[in-house]
Formats: sequence, structure tokens, C-alpha cells
Amino acid sequence: MKKKIGLLVTGGLMIGSTAHAQAPTVEGLSVSLDMVWIMVAALLVFFMHAGFAMVESGFTRSKNALNILMKNFLTISIASVLYLAIGYALMFGSSIGGFTGLDGFFLTGHEDQIGFFVFQAMFAATCATIISGAVAERMKLSSYILLTVAMTALIYPIVGHWVWGGGWLSELGFTDFAGSTVVHLTGALGAIVAVKFLGARLGKYTNGKVNVIAGHNIPLGALGVFILWFGWFGFNGGSTLAADPSLIPHVITTTLLSASAGVLASAFYTQFRYQRIDASLTLNGALAGLVGITAGTGDVSPIGAIIIGLVAGVLLVEAVTFIDRKAKIDDPVGAIAVHGVCGIWGTLAVGLFSTSSGLFYGGGVSQLGIQAIGILAVSAWTIGSVGLFLFIVTRFTSIRVTKEEEISGLDFAEHGSSAYELRESVFSDNSSAPEFGTGLVHRLNNLGGSTQKRKAKEV
Amino acid sequence: MKKKIGLLVTGGLMIGSTAHAQAPTVEGLSVSLDMVWIMVAALLVFFMHAGFAMVESGFTRSKNALNILMKNFLTISIASVLYLAIGYALMFGSSIGGFTGLDGFFLTGHEDQIGFFVFQAMFAATCATIISGAVAERMKLSSYILLTVAMTALIYPIVGHWVWGGGWLSELGFTDFAGSTVVHLTGALGAIVAVKFLGARLGKYTNGKVNVIAGHNIPLGALGVFILWFGWFGFNGGSTLAADPSLIPHVITTTLLSASAGVLASAFYTQFRYQRIDASLTLNGALAGLVGITAGTGDVSPIGAIIIGLVAGVLLVEAVTFIDRKAKIDDPVGAIAVHGVCGIWGTLAVGLFSTSSGLFYGGGVSQLGIQAIGILAVSAWTIGSVGLFLFIVTRFTSIRVTKEEEISGLDFAEHGSSAYELRESVFSDNSSAPEFGTGLVHRLNNLGGSTQKRKAKEV
Amino acid sequence: MKKKIGLLVTGGLMIGSTAHAQAPTVEGLSVSLDMVWIMVAALLVFFMHAGFAMVESGFTRSKNALNILMKNFLTISIASVLYLAIGYALMFGSSIGGFTGLDGFFLTGHEDQIGFFVFQAMFAATCATIISGAVAERMKLSSYILLTVAMTALIYPIVGHWVWGGGWLSELGFTDFAGSTVVHLTGALGAIVAVKFLGARLGKYTNGKVNVIAGHNIPLGALGVFILWFGWFGFNGGSTLAADPSLIPHVITTTLLSASAGVLASAFYTQFRYQRIDASLTLNGALAGLVGITAGTGDVSPIGAIIIGLVAGVLLVEAVTFIDRKAKIDDPVGAIAVHGVCGIWGTLAVGLFSTSSGLFYGGGVSQLGIQAIGILAVSAWTIGSVGLFLFIVTRFTSIRVTKEEEISGLDFAEHGSSAYELRESVFSDNSSAPEFGTGLVHRLNNLGGSTQKRKAKEV
Repeated sequence: MKKKIGLLVTGGLMIGSTAHAQAPTVEGLSVSLDMVWIMVAALLVFFMHAGFAMVESGFTRSKNALNILMKNFLTISIASVLYLAIGYALMFGSSIGGFTGLDGFFLTGHEDQIGFFVFQAMFAATCATIISGAVAERMKLSSYILLTVAMTALIYPIVGHWVWGGGWLSELGFTDFAGSTVVHLTGALGAIVAVKFLGARLGKYTNGKVNVIAGHNIPLGALGVFILWFGWFGFNGGSTLAADPSLIPHVITTTLLSASAGVLASAFYTQFRYQRIDASLTLNGALAGLVGITAGTGDVSPIGAIIIGLVAGVLLVEAVTFIDRKAKIDDPVGAIAVHGVCGIWGTLAVGLFSTSSGLFYGGGVSQLGIQAIGILAVSAWTIGSVGLFLFIVTRFTSIRVTKEEEISGLDFAEHGSSAYELRESVFSDNSSAPEFGTGLVHRLNNLGGSTQKRKAKEV
Repeated sequence: MKKKIGLLVTGGLMIGSTAHAQAPTVEGLSVSLDMVWIMVAALLVFFMHAGFAMVESGFTRSKNALNILMKNFLTISIASVLYLAIGYALMFGSSIGGFTGLDGFFLTGHEDQIGFFVFQAMFAATCATIISGAVAERMKLSSYILLTVAMTALIYPIVGHWVWGGGWLSELGFTDFAGSTVVHLTGALGAIVAVKFLGARLGKYTNGKVNVIAGHNIPLGALGVFILWFGWFGFNGGSTLAADPSLIPHVITTTLLSASAGVLASAFYTQFRYQRIDASLTLNGALAGLVGITAGTGDVSPIGAIIIGLVAGVLLVEAVTFIDRKAKIDDPVGAIAVHGVCGIWGTLAVGLFSTSSGLFYGGGVSQLGIQAIGILAVSAWTIGSVGLFLFIVTRFTSIRVTKEEEISGLDFAEHGSSAYELRESVFSDNSSAPEFGTGLVHRLNNLGGSTQKRKAKEV
Repeated sequence: MKKKIGLLVTGGLMIGSTAHAQAPTVEGLSVSLDMVWIMVAALLVFFMHAGFAMVESGFTRSKNALNILMKNFLTISIASVLYLAIGYALMFGSSIGGFTGLDGFFLTGHEDQIGFFVFQAMFAATCATIISGAVAERMKLSSYILLTVAMTALIYPIVGHWVWGGGWLSELGFTDFAGSTVVHLTGALGAIVAVKFLGARLGKYTNGKVNVIAGHNIPLGALGVFILWFGWFGFNGGSTLAADPSLIPHVITTTLLSASAGVLASAFYTQFRYQRIDASLTLNGALAGLVGITAGTGDVSPIGAIIIGLVAGVLLVEAVTFIDRKAKIDDPVGAIAVHGVCGIWGTLAVGLFSTSSGLFYGGGVSQLGIQAIGILAVSAWTIGSVGLFLFIVTRFTSIRVTKEEEISGLDFAEHGSSAYELRESVFSDNSSAPEFGTGLVHRLNNLGGSTQKRKAKEV
């Protein structure tokens, strides 16, 4: 930067005219423009992690908020490093029989793909972080970290190779523009298996009753939904992989319309079904519409996008109700309904609404069949691999915190701290605070301290 | 996406070089670059809705937070769909006598304008959502939805046609670069009419006294202001409609400077007037500066922008005080002062500070006169049409919640839920929770339940 | 905008094709593309201020939240105006002996550098706002404003001139790609001097004990960290100053990896050192990795970036502990450790890991020596100038609030208001509220009112 600015200031010129050592060419500019767009999109996908963190912490209890935030920060961090080391090689390395890539670890020999790599790394982290919401409030952080390692280094990259890395599903004609199946369904399948191993939260299902465990900060969760929606434009928009002046606005438009339709459908359907617009389900309706349009965002019309979103919004309400009350699968934030059920819907919707190959546009049922095969194959692989992984892990250790830790909250149990301190006390509490800790270390009570004592101090 | 990545991986090439089927041309690249910039700007405008949601929920009471969030989510959703179906056709269809467009419903025949459409759709939603803050804490959600339909399908598009769609005000020379009048004043006028129909919140004006009803979460509101400021760079910057390397940085700079000056003016003016820097008014000072610069952002100098912002910041303080205490119009978040008063100021400021036509730059008073005509015309139309609409609606139904619902809070009354649950209880409360509901449905008490009982359970 | 859309609608054409008056050229497009990228980056840097505001308010007590937010809003506002008036001229004006520039006040004669100016203005504000976190909860707002004026008009621009404006350090070969030293270390040095003048918060160090003063809203702080990380991609990515399709993704990748490694290092190191993953330190670990990579982001390899981040994450934990417990410097948010210690590390790391000149890549120790000289020179200047400035200011006035104000909280003392009002009362409290105030003025109790009374009303 130094030298360039030196030039810039010396010459009194504008930035652009001094920044390039050589004369620009049309071909070079085209590469640069594509790269600028992909990088902007990558940053938007990165920002989705802030959205996940806010949704997941807001929709759960305050006593577990720090723990969820840690899970989100660790997911993007682990995913970035491992996807560089291993994941990208498996996903985009030269295909071995259509099943996996196996070269390019640490980008070796593929250094020129670094822009594509970093865009894809953000996606890998997204897939993994979907799980964190479903296992919230009871999974040990250490076990979650192990699962994240498995997801980002192996399980997700294999799916990615099949569909986007030149693997067998892509050969078959399976179409998933930005990842309804590759990212969202894969994450949701990991979530459902993990939840099956974990069981429900204490107090969720008691004596045959289904209890509501309320989220603690819905405005924060709503902000998270807005951030996710904002980031999703990069998620879908960047998947064009080029600054295509027709395709990008088409993708932005269908993404906007499907999410909007998801909101409207969830809102009005809960009004119809429960006689009130349910706030949490309506917020999830936006995400339902977004997951639903992800596979077909480049291939469906604006009106198709609206229909996809409307169906997703209704599906979401029914799926949450079914999963929570009938299947008795305890998913605190509705991740399985949003990313799983609507991921399947979005993938199938390509077979229905694709203007080039969909059933409703004269394309017959073949695309729909291929989409179904892809869903089944990804389900078999993800359920099988996550299941085997967690089966092995649970032979050695419990992946769930103890009952006492769960009641006291994971923030206290795993981090010795709490997310909020809305009373301010300058002298009283602090003078009796333990010596240990720093200005940053937030209320470091010893874990050994009595839980009852802590609860008595709560507001 | 599949095939492109297939190519990419097979060939081991960088993204850009494989993404285009044909050789790029200078003309094609120019179109692509403009589109990339407009799409980035559109996404920033989208994100402003998160800002509105945080400002409006943070600056009002916690018992109405969910309701406001729902209004914000429904506004962007309704606007997106209706602007596609109707609004864009009225605003940018072939002009009928300069008053309205009337073709291109669902973009039919204008499919190639999809990028411009989606950028404009974000603006339509912005105009409508301005109202949600002013009517907060007492307007029925169902009535608000009706008003949003009217605003986005008809009232705003007509204004937009006059100014940006080739209508009579644009023929006259009326200048509103990014919408001080078209978006902000129109929204604020809708707000003032709606508030007049609604009346003040219970407890706001009692026995001749003006009471303060405090916002519940100012940090969230402050974040909202930052998000709005961030998004506003897209709002103004994208209105260049091209990747113009001189105009874009000029717009970004004047936007930054005017907002900054608004902050400084509100802060120091409240210090002068009230002997302390008022936090809420200073936050609104940023928005005042932003609304103020919106009409002239491309036409005024950096120093002009600072002056416009300084005036806006002082105006804001006086306007809030006047509206709240003298006019006794109850606007919980100051939307009428910010978007209305400063919208008028910003529109007139073009006539004063425009370096090409403003009074202070030797352009005489003609631009100023034209700006005033535009303000009057838009005011007449918006007040008339919103007034007529609400007059008709109120013949059939009350647009205001009942007194009991208002006291209990709209979250409880309209959504059977609450925004916060800062105490955590695993067993106690939940075991007695109603059967109805899902893991996502947040504290679903029956509406029929006694309000007193609920209040007793509050922190 | 009006006329362009007129054309657009009349002709039924796409945006791009009508937006340019003249035929585009390759050279023109190159300038435009660079500008689009720099402007996107500038906006991301702007958004970092939202991140700082959330981190600083979340990591401190609720009774001081408004005051911190005001400091953040005023910093960006003051910086924008003063950097236009003075700062840019000193930093990028024609060099006088390598020490300072001295022409181009208000951009006069440099109007064509407006894009570069606005990008740099965001940086100037970032440097200044670093101080606000360290002096939180006790520095008078008026004194903070004075210090911000000095930082943005003089102290930071001189450092900037030395390194980026063609000054003596740049002549020497000092390398700081995006500002580990120029922005972060300079801000942290200002912070440490200010904290030395201020002293610790009441109750922080009592009878030889180091007390923990807990932050009040860590989820908001965590969101702030995510926003900072997101914005940092623009901070580093925009410092390429051109849409370079190789350099930009390289910078994005090293930034992502170093931040990720910082998170992992802080998390696992606190697990090792304190037997639990500390949430606040892990969040700061992300920032540590970001500050650490800032100087070398364009010059180090992905693996180098990971190592830099790992070291930064461990350093952060040790530095916070040392500063807080041994040096007894009270820095509520850890700004000195994050921006200062990791700023030094990042600057030195260029001398170690630069693939062109670093010690570990066969470049010898000369780069490392030059980096050390730069650190020493910037330290001497910043400590000296900030020290002299505060020495003079403190001859005239106290820069610290009174003990009573500190106990009551700066929100109440300086703004007569509070950040939260989580109980909702329509009639009771408000009917006895003072007449003074507006709908926006948040709980305007008189400062003269008894502090005890106010405290009794707290939750």
C-alpha cells in the first residue's frame, strides 16, 4: 500500500490511474470484475454467521447464550482452517470416481483458486453452524467441536464434491444453484442425527406434555434473521460465480421475493391456524423462503419464486409443529424444519419450477426424479457418516452436559460466566469477587460454587 | 452453478476466465460493472430495514417490541410482492399524462429492467416502513397491513412516477437525487395522517401534561441508527445508477459529512438547549443529516453537505420538541421530524446549495421555487390519498387496539407472546405452560388469560 | 437521477446502457472498477464503528452504555469533518521533510482524490474510536471530544504521513499494509496515555485486590465482534487500492484465517490456562488475529496468516492478564491488549513472515529492524503528543467525572437518561415524570435529583 500511495500523492492522481502497473485489458478487467463481485458475496456469506449467532442465542435461554456464541465463533474459525487444509481438496480436487477429490490440500498447486476457495470456505462454515442451533442448551462444547471438525473436513466436502465438484450427482444433472441440499439439507441432517443422540432438553417433554421453552431475546433473534437475509443475497448472488448483468439481478429478485413470500405465508398461516400471527414462526418463515429458493434461484421466474416461498412458509409452520409435538425432536431454534424440510422442498422445487427443465414448464418429471435421487443420496451419506461418527464418539464420552450443568446453564457450567449483568454494582458484588480473572473475564465464579447460590443472585 | 464449477475444476482455472461463454466486450463490461454497483447498493438499502426494525423496537417499550418487528418484516415482504405486481408498473410504466404509468405489471414486457426493479423495490419498502415507527404501540397489525398495501401499491408509486418515472414534476425540473421527498417525506406524510387518525398512546398526554414514555433498549436503537447510516450509503450511492468514478465517491462523501454534521448539531444543540447531550436526539441527528442530504447528495459540495447536516440536526431537535409538546402529535420514534421536516429541508436545500442551480451558487430562486412546488404537490397527494384511505377503513373497523390490549402490550395482545424472557426457568413455569404451541412459539399464553396475572409474572 | 431514469423508462433500456454519456473505454472502466471496490471497502470500514459501539457498550456496565454510544457516534462525526478540514492535508499533502503534509485543506486542489479521501477518513475515525473503549465508564464526554479532535486533526495524520503519505518511514521501507501500527497501535497508545491520566474505575483495584467489573450484554458485544470482523475485510481488502484479482482474495483469505486462528488460540489457551474457554477473551481473540494480520495481510502466505493469528490469540490472553493484574492499567474492553500489543506483533510479523522480505523467508533481519524502528518512532510521537495534550488539558479541567457521577453512571450523570427500561409502565411512572422533555428524550430525570432515589428505582 505504501508505495502505491507514495505514487498517488506524488503524482496528485486519482487512485485508479496509478494502481495498475500495466495497461488494463478487457480480459483482465472481466476477471477483476468477477472477482470483486465474488468477494463482496463472500463477505456477505461471512456476515451470515453473525445472523446465525443472533438467531440462535436470541431464540434460546439467556443462561446458554455465551455457549451458543462460542459455538458460532468456533465453527467459522475451525471451518476456515480445516477447509483450507482438507475440505477444499476433497470438494474440488480432481475427482476419484465421482466420489471425492483428493488433491490440493492447503491449496497446494491451486493457489490461483484462492478467491473461489475463500468464497467456498464461507459456505462450509455455514453448513456446520446450522447444527449449533439444534443442539443448543445441552451439547458439550468439546463434543460440538469434534462434530464441527468432522463436518467441515469430511462430511460436507464429500456432498459438495458430488454436486459442485464434478462428482456423480453433477454428472447426473442434479441442480442445486446455491445449496438448498448441499449446504442446508446437509447441515439439517447433521442436526437431526446429533439431536437424536442428545435427546431433548430437560423439561421439554414431561409426563407426555410438550412444554414451551421460550427464547430470551427475540429482537436480537429478529436482527439475526435480517442479517441472514442480507447475507443470503451474497450466498445466492455470489453463486453466479461471475458478474453476469442478467443473472445477478434475477437471483437477487427471486431471493427477495421468496423470502418475502415465506414471511407472508408463515404470518397468515399462523393467523389462520392459531388465530394470531406468531412472531417466531414468521421470522423463521423468512428463512424458510430463503432456504426454499436457494436451489432454484437462478432457474425460476419471479412468480415461481413467490410460489416457492409461499409453500415454504406454510411447510415451515407445519414442520415445526410436527417435529416438536409429534416426532418429539427437540430443536430449540427450528433448524431442522427451516434447513431440512425447506431444503428438500427447495431442491424438489427446481424439478417443478425450473423454466428450462421443470415439470410445470414442460420439462417432464426427469429433473424432479434426479432431484429426488440427490436428496436421498445426500441423506444416506450424511445420516450414515454423522451417525457413525457420533456412535464412535459416544463410546468414549458423553456428548451432553450433566443434568446439574444443564439446569445451571451452559454459560456458567462451561464458561464460568454469564451473558448479561443488567444490574450494576460497583462495590458490593465485586469486592467479594474471586481474585482470579481479568477486566475482560466476565463474572468468573468458580464452577465448584453452589448452583443454588448462583440462582439466588439472579434477577 | 454446477456446470461452471465443473469447468472450473476440470480446467484448474480461475473463476473469471471460465465464467463467460463469450469473449467480454468493453460495452458488456460497462453494463456488468454498473449492475454490480447497483446490486450492492440495493442490498445495502435492504439492510436498512434491519436498521428501522432496531430503531423502532429499541425506542419503544418492550411490551410492543415483537409487534413492531412483525410490522417491519411484513412491510418489506408486502412491498416486494406488490411492487412487482403493481407498484413498478405505476411508477415506471409509460406515462399517462405525467400522472402515472400503467403498464409492466409483474414486469411483463420489461423483464430486462429486473435489476432496476429490485433496487427500486427496496426503496418502496423503505417509504412504507417509515410509518411503522410513528404508529407504534397502538395501531392494529391488520390495519397497518392494509395501509402498507395502499402505500406500496399505489400512493408511493404515484409520487415516484411524478419525480423519477418521467412524470410532471420531473418535467418541471424538480430535483430529488435519492428521495428526500419521494421516499422520506412521502413516508412521513403517511405517518402524520395515520397518527392523526390513531391519536396518542394512553398516558402520553394526561391532564395537560406531556409525559415521557421511555424506549426500552437504546443500544439496540443505536445499532439500528448505525445500520441505517451504513445502508444509506447504498440508498444515495446507488441512486447514481452507474459505476461513475467521480459521482459515487462524491455521494459517499456528502452523505458521510451531512450525517456527521447532523450528529454534531443535535449533540451540541441539546447541550446548549437542555444542558446535556441528549442521546436519543443525537442518534436521530444522524438520521436527520441523512434525510437532509438525500435530495442533494450528488449536487452539493462537501461544505454544502456539512451545512445541510448542521441545519438538519438543529431542525430535528426543534421539530421533535414542537411536534411532541406543542402540536401534541404522538410519534414514538420521531419519524415525522426526521423524515418529514428534514425531508422538506433536504428538498429545499437543493434549491439553495446545488452547485449547478442553487441560490447560493448564483442559480437564482427558480430551483428553489420548483422544489417548493414539488413538496406541496407531494404533500397534497399523500395527505389526501392516505386520509381518504384511512377515512374509508375507519368506517368499517377501528384501526387501534383496545385500551386493555394497549395496556397489556401489543406483543401479548396480538401475538400471545413477549420479546424477552430474561429469567430462565426450566421446570417451574414450563410445566404449567399450555399444551398448545411449539418449541418456537414463544410463551404462548392464551389471550383470554387475565392481564393482571400476566403482569404479575413480569420482572 | 431524474433525467437518467427518464431516458431509461422512455427507451425501455437497461440501466447500464443509458447511464454513460460517452462510450466506455478500457481505461475508464478500470478506474471505475477500482473505485467501486474502494467504496465498498470504505463502507465496510464505516460499519466497523457499529462494531466498536456494540463491543464497547456490551463489555461495560449498563449504566454507562449511552455514554459510550455517544462517544462512538461523536468520534466518527468529528473525525469525518476534521479529516476533511485538516487531517487529510497533513497526511497526504506534499511532504515537508518527510514529517507532514501541509496542503489540501478541505481537499482544495485535490478534489479528484475524493474517493481516496473518504476511504481514509473512515480509517482516521477508527484510530480515534479505539480510545473510547479504554477510557469507558469514567472519562468526561467533553474531555473525550477534545482528545478526539487532537487525534483526528493532528496526531493520527502525522503518523499516517510518515507511513502512507510518502513520509520518512515509508522512505525507510517500513511496511504496514492496512494499519497494524498506523491505525491500531496509534489508537492503543493514545488509549494507554489517556488511561494513565484517568486512573482506574472506582472499585477496580481495592485493597490490593483486582476486581472483575462485568460487562452487561455480551451477546451485543459478540455481535460487535462479528461486525468488526466483517468490516475488517474492507479495512484490509480496500487497502489494495485497486480491484486486483489476485491480491484481493489473498487479503480476504489471510484476514479470515488469522482471525480464525486468533479465536482458536484464545479459546484453547484459556482452556489450558483457566480450565475453561473464556467467552470474552475468545471474542477478543478474533480481534487480536485481525489486528495481527493487518500489517502483513498482502505479504504473508495463508499458513503464515494462521501462525500470526495463533500467536496473536495467545498474546492477547497474556496481555490482558498482565495489563489488568500486574500493570494495573484499567482497560474495560481490552483495547490496549488487542490494538496495542497485537498491533506491535502484527507489525513485527511482517519482518518475519513476509514472503518477499521476511526473516523466515530468507529476507534477513533488515525488514524486522525497520519494522521495530517504525514502532518506536510511532510510539514516541503518539505517547509524547497525547501526553502533552492531556497534560495541558488537565491543567485547566478534570478529564474525569466526579465520584458521585461515576457511581450513578455516566448515562444518568451526563445524559440524564438510561439505556434500558425493561419494565413497562404506562401510567404510574410517567404521570410523575418531569414536564421537561419530548417523546424521544429518554427518561429525563433532573440531574439534581437524588442518586439514591434513582438507584432505588432500578431493576
